[in-house]
Amino acid sequence: MIQREHIAAAATAITPHIRHTPVLEVPPGTLGIDATLTFKLEHMQISGTFKIRGVLNTVLSHPEAAKSGLIAASGGNHGIAVAMVAKRLGVRAKIFVPTIAGAAKRQRLQALGAEVVVEGDVYKDTLAAARKEAESTGLLILYAFEARETIIGAGTLGPELEEQARPDMIALAVGGGGLAAGLAAWFGDRVPLLCTEPVSSPTLHVALSAGEPVDVETGGIAADALGCARVGDIPFSVLSGSRVISELVKSDDVLRAQTDLWDELRIAVEPAAAVALAGVRALPTAALQGKRIAVVLCGANLDPASLSRTPSGTGWTGDTSKEKARSFSA
Amino acid sequence: MIQREHIAAAATAITPHIRHTPVLEVPPGTLGIDATLTFKLEHMQISGTFKIRGVLNTVLSHPEAAKSGLIAASGGNHGIAVAMVAKRLGVRAKIFVPTIAGAAKRQRLQALGAEVVVEGDVYKDTLAAARKEAESTGLLILYAFEARETIIGAGTLGPELEEQARPDMIALAVGGGGLAAGLAAWFGDRVPLLCTEPVSSPTLHVALSAGEPVDVETGGIAADALGCARVGDIPFSVLSGSRVISELVKSDDVLRAQTDLWDELRIAVEPAAAVALAGVRALPTAALQGKRIAVVLCGANLDPASLSRTPSGTGWTGDTSKEKARSFSA
Repeated sequence: MIQREHIAAAATAITPHIRHTPVLEVPPGTLGIDATLTFKLEHMQISGTFKIRGVLNTVLSHPEAAKSGLIAASGGNHGIAVAMVAKRLGVRAKIFVPTIAGAAKRQRLQALGAEVVVEGDVYKDTLAAARKEAESTGLLILYAFEARETIIGAGTLGPELEEQARPDMIALAVGGGGLAAGLAAWFGDRVPLLCTEPVSSPTLHVALSAGEPVDVETGGIAADALGCARVGDIPFSVLSGSRVISELVKSDDVLRAQTDLWDELRIAVEPAAAVALAGVRALPTAALQGKRIAVVLCGANLDPASLSRTPSGTGWTGDTSKEKARSFSA
Repeated sequence: MIQREHIAAAATAITPHIRHTPVLEVPPGTLGIDATLTFKLEHMQISGTFKIRGVLNTVLSHPEAAKSGLIAASGGNHGIAVAMVAKRLGVRAKIFVPTIAGAAKRQRLQALGAEVVVEGDVYKDTLAAARKEAESTGLLILYAFEARETIIGAGTLGPELEEQARPDMIALAVGGGGLAAGLAAWFGDRVPLLCTEPVSSPTLHVALSAGEPVDVETGGIAADALGCARVGDIPFSVLSGSRVISELVKSDDVLRAQTDLWDELRIAVEPAAAVALAGVRALPTAALQGKRIAVVLCGANLDPASLSRTPSGTGWTGDTSKEKARSFSA
């Protein structure tokens, strides 16, 4: 359904407009992990997250429609990416945000020139409002993860990762599943994906168990970036047929991973990005030794002051807190 | 006096023990600068700064002496690097710090297992005390910038920069001059160095004007990392015969550069590292256009909360504040 050549074509199209984010490789033992880790520093991407890839791929696929303006439903990183692209194109952006989105997020979108519409108590309703508006106005709607072009755009991380990291496994955080699906489409059966979610937002995990996307209660840490209540239909159809290891991690483990990334590597990322590292730590040693694991640091839209919340130290040395579920599919 | 082959040999020796820090390249226009910038993310190096390079090169050059333990004079990044290497070697570290060093710095060194000795109101006196102790104890003294092996170790950034950035110019901050001298020794006349200091710590600038190292009053921003009162004799002898552009920048420009690195690139560095970017901004447009400039981000030993001090925004768009001096030598 999504082929490598689609992703390769998208990479060619969007590469001139984005940053080629670098990788940092660290040897086994670093951060207490018995594997070679290659961190993909995608949090340094334009807009502060990988989301810009899917947005650009969609816009470049519909250049005429984009001229009328852009619409999106998002309280977070996707909305920021859409607003930035609209600003660059010189067109209007109308971002629908759920009622729970804080004033800071709304103001950030407005500072980027976007019109903000507060609608829907949950993301599903916010998205429905955005769709309705797109139909009545003709503005181009940009999906956060529910659309083929978004997934293909996110998948452009694949060829970069392959060349930069030569991974045996790819670790990433999952929200709606767009990035995971894009990487699965690129790597196929060659490289397994370690898809990690907070226990408080287990959308993919529950869907894999149920055999289909289902609504789940979401909240807790990283919910602003990962808590989308239900994995996307297209992402699920890709992921359910792929080599996926689904991990769940506790909030404490996510915060510890976030703190350690700063303490040990001087990398400041948002909790959603640290989820990927927490997932690696949840693996048994036998799954790590001798392996090359690419860890996607997907975003850094955070207040750096938040890194001072937890005590800074000489690095994480505690137990790996094995309390978690793990499921394998395909 | 210091040849490329010395640096190449040091690189071979220390490379297995350090991180190959990546670079992030951004196109002209980014951060309001009319040049292709390649940021060397050396703040992700072990110990949080490039200082580990000189320390390791010295230790590996004196393996027997190192077994008895390490001594250094430093209130900052050099001391941290020495303490970390001592810990790794399993030997004692005795770090002399000036009386002005805060409790947080002393505690950080102690947390790394170092013995901290407070001595001297100015760095010169602290260094004299460390030298005396080294002579009486036989412990190996690690110089922050005043020794050949330190400079050669710092110079190992040179071959990495050459390969990763292919620069027309290299921008870096200068304190004691060790890193600048190491890079000058590697690049020779092929690539000019833009050596920037805060106006409040103009040690190299004043020395180049005077034709020799002289004591200057230092303080203000980044003084913890760059305020060493006097450029080193060996660094000066290298730099005075090299292609050096000496820039001075105001505190406000340094803070703005630090904030912009976070806002635009999600890179969190200490003020001393942001000095290098502030120096690039101080150059006239004609010196930038069509150029490839490597910007060395030398350290990130900061409390990330400090990045919240200044208002976060959509990036720097103000004037370049041309108030500064500039001198060219050789």
